[in-house]
Amino acid sequence: VSGPGELEVIERIRRLLSPLGGAAEVGIGDDAAVVAEPDGGALLLTADVLVAGVHFDLALSDPSDVGWKAVVANVSDIAAMGGEPLYALVTLVVPPGFALSGLYEGLAESAGAYGVQVVGGDLSAGNELCVSIALTGRCPRCPPVFRSGARAGDVIFVTGPLGASAAGLRLLRAGESSGACVEAHRRPVARVAEGIAAATAGATAMIDISDGLATDLRHLAAASGVGARLEEVPVAPGADLEEALTGGEDYQLLFSAPDPAAVQAAFEAARLRPPLAVGVCVQDPIELTLAGEPLAGRGYEHNLTW
Amino acid sequence: VSGPGELEVIERIRRLLSPLGGAAEVGIGDDAAVVAEPDGGALLLTADVLVAGVHFDLALSDPSDVGWKAVVANVSDIAAMGGEPLYALVTLVVPPGFALSGLYEGLAESAGAYGVQVVGGDLSAGNELCVSIALTGRCPRCPPVFRSGARAGDVIFVTGPLGASAAGLRLLRAGESSGACVEAHRRPVARVAEGIAAATAGATAMIDISDGLATDLRHLAAASGVGARLEEVPVAPGADLEEALTGGEDYQLLFSAPDPAAVQAAFEAARLRPPLAVGVCVQDPIELTLAGEPLAGRGYEHNLTW
Repeated sequence: VSGPGELEVIERIRRLLSPLGGAAEVGIGDDAAVVAEPDGGALLLTADVLVAGVHFDLALSDPSDVGWKAVVANVSDIAAMGGEPLYALVTLVVPPGFALSGLYEGLAESAGAYGVQVVGGDLSAGNELCVSIALTGRCPRCPPVFRSGARAGDVIFVTGPLGASAAGLRLLRAGESSGACVEAHRRPVARVAEGIAAATAGATAMIDISDGLATDLRHLAAASGVGARLEEVPVAPGADLEEALTGGEDYQLLFSAPDPAAVQAAFEAARLRPPLAVGVCVQDPIELTLAGEPLAGRGYEHNLTW
Repeated sequence: VSGPGELEVIERIRRLLSPLGGAAEVGIGDDAAVVAEPDGGALLLTADVLVAGVHFDLALSDPSDVGWKAVVANVSDIAAMGGEPLYALVTLVVPPGFALSGLYEGLAESAGAYGVQVVGGDLSAGNELCVSIALTGRCPRCPPVFRSGARAGDVIFVTGPLGASAAGLRLLRAGESSGACVEAHRRPVARVAEGIAAATAGATAMIDISDGLATDLRHLAAASGVGARLEEVPVAPGADLEEALTGGEDYQLLFSAPDPAAVQAAFEAARLRPPLAVGVCVQDPIELTLAGEPLAGRGYEHNLTW
């Protein structure tokens, strides 16, 4: 018997909880929730969990890599709003005998790299390792960028080539232990400066590519009520097109913006590698194509029961 | 081989992460972290996880009770700072076939009861049910109350009798399914209004009794560098003294304050049941006594490896 699927479950959760109302500008469903601050600013709140055997394999990943990636996955959600990460709460469920020091070393490295302060969390014994992080951020200059603002005619950008992390996992499984793709899988990078540059340049919608370009573009297009016509997809060296389309965890940003010249100027001013124009938003929300062909790939959904 | 113990592990985590510095007024170790807001206010951040088989037993607790308690455990940490809860991120790790609706119904009830808005979170498949919540709050009127401000001579208060939840768990295990103690275990109450009243009345230190009075008093005294001389412990009807001393999850608040009249007045003004004076803080940090006898009970520590 097939369950309702993760997206449908999230929709049911949203319906159950939405009567509570409140002050959040946007809640469940974007990369991060946005709530108003007393001074008129926007506070960003996000949470991401990594579970052993689901999101990582300790036979292939060092515990310090898991700690690193757990922070990056959350920082990337803040980056996708055009925000800066600030404070993390780190909650661990730890199986018997699992040594914590390596995982916290990776967490500390990553937190240091992104200027994140770990201010608390929780620890519990359990049977399987879970790393659950909640991260608070702020939008420094611009209003936050949601998934939902793309309009027909906007140009679609990605901040870099895709598929390196998926290729790295394939290589690790084949026994490789080094190289750029393996490194991309072990130590992914969140694009905070790129997110701010995109927001500055008037990005209308943004999402981080954590589930694969095909899936995350679908999310952005659906939230915005537009379609998307991709011309080509930049494939990372060592990866193949399938990995570039469906591999998550590259944490590149995908965004739409009406003015490509403004985008190039903002990235140049921030001394960032220019983002890659990959296509255009179109009126028809049914259209999701790459070089004229329908874009496949629904992405991974956890099997859940309501 | 015995591990370093949970408190020692938390101390090592704190040492590993503290070089990162930053703007937090207080981070790891209090009920909630306190970070400064741009308008000069104080944002409170806390996280708590409940794990099946560790914190609850689905043979004894309905999933909706687990959802309720997961919110309350976090709200109580905000209450213990004198704060008001605002926004929750709910992250679930869900074993195959576990139906989510009941748990989210309990979450929604509890969030509604405490004015908490669930703004996001994460969902993952896994092998054991984990409910990990991160909660943001604010201090509405007074500065937050830490664990560390108690001084010799301060009177020690609890907001109500203790042990009902532990007695309820004992009764559930014995096959009972109703009554005040069972209800106290299934649907514990967080003391938000009481925490604000205590802060208003000049409380010098505060903690929620989640691990048992003996343990949580020890935490408060150690953080403040004082001892504590208890005269008597208010035992909830149906509970015994041992349950009142060591049973967690009553979520009553324990606080110290120099002016008992101000405390009574603040609780009366807020139309709250008056808190119970149970003892006094003393100079000698070694002294932790109840009616002249050493207070036993280190409380539960998860077995962790560093």
